[in-house]
Amino acid sequence: MPDPIEFWFDFSSPYAYFAAHTIERRLEPYGRAIAWRPFLLGVAFRVTGMSGLSRTPLRGDYARHDWRRLSRMLGVPFAIPPHHPYPSQPVARAFYHLEAHEPAAAVPFAKAAFDAHFAHGIDLSDADAVVALARPLVSNPAALSAWLASPEAKARLAAANEEAIGKGVFGSPFFIADHEPFWGWDRIGMLEQWLRNGSRWPETNT
Amino acid sequence: MPDPIEFWFDFSSPYAYFAAHTIERRLEPYGRAIAWRPFLLGVAFRVTGMSGLSRTPLRGDYARHDWRRLSRMLGVPFAIPPHHPYPSQPVARAFYHLEAHEPAAAVPFAKAAFDAHFAHGIDLSDADAVVALARPLVSNPAALSAWLASPEAKARLAAANEEAIGKGVFGSPFFIADHEPFWGWDRIGMLEQWLRNGSRWPETNT
Repeated sequence: MPDPIEFWFDFSSPYAYFAAHTIERRLEPYGRAIAWRPFLLGVAFRVTGMSGLSRTPLRGDYARHDWRRLSRMLGVPFAIPPHHPYPSQPVARAFYHLEAHEPAAAVPFAKAAFDAHFAHGIDLSDADAVVALARPLVSNPAALSAWLASPEAKARLAAANEEAIGKGVFGSPFFIADHEPFWGWDRIGMLEQWLRNGSRWPETNT
Repeated sequence: MPDPIEFWFDFSSPYAYFAAHTIERRLEPYGRAIAWRPFLLGVAFRVTGMSGLSRTPLRGDYARHDWRRLSRMLGVPFAIPPHHPYPSQPVARAFYHLEAHEPAAAVPFAKAAFDAHFAHGIDLSDADAVVALARPLVSNPAALSAWLASPEAKARLAAANEEAIGKGVFGSPFFIADHEPFWGWDRIGMLEQWLRNGSRWPETNT
């Protein structure tokens, strides 16, 4: 049984939102599990010296245009809420609680969180909003609420951030398949090629 | 007659090298001219606050790995020379002289300059090296040499840099087709889709 494909992302990342809407369908032919791995892009920015797209001259304007055309191309609703980008600590910590204690709810919760922010303009920057989002999806919202106030929640996300940096993850989305890294929504096609070809990677002259 | 597709690049950019090897073949079906537009990525970095990949932690390691796999995928020889990245002012200025005075030599010169650096490890950071590279391709190397020492050469490249920033160009390669911007080697496929679909852009659900 091969390792799952790691899908690293920040919940506040528009390109990760588009990846979350497409990755399962695109990787389905290859029969590999996907491990959703939220982390904080800001931690990687402190290592690389980069900054968020929304705050970067020229690149921010391009990204806003690009997100709109991707939304149309993919048929995925998208609008930048006024509170974007938002601190994604509570939602990322909630994901890891669900993964450990209600695993069937974790990915549906992640998808709901992406849609809440990017399709419905809901602010998820505090724990109460995150618990309200999770309530219809989980069996024990009280346990989730208690976890979000605990030091363990902070430590769990810090460990994910450390793991991301240790694996060379510096952007969102970022995929790792069999130790091979693929940065960005644009590289899902190359990841598919890797999964098709395995040890015969890379195909030449494509 | 539609405008040419603008291909903005820095001669010191590995992703632009790969684009230079593939862009004519990939865009050939659409019958559009390509305008090669060298500029200095460092000028854009001063606006965006970004820095060169080779000097960025995490991202630099990823890029070096990525360039090696692209080289194998595309069947294009590639090695990072010890003097990489290099100041590409002389080679970019030479390109604009040829474009104005020996237009048939300009693109062959650009391709030779990319290959000299990325396939053959030749240092092009001074005017003598650039004239030596151009000598077999041009009819008047003495005029090129004189131009490289002139204030006009500096002003011509400065104008190109200003034009790039004014059009929102912040990376290399960067393509503009009918005012639609496409950043990066990864987006050549999306540019092809644009050229196929024109006013029906974007295709949905692809």
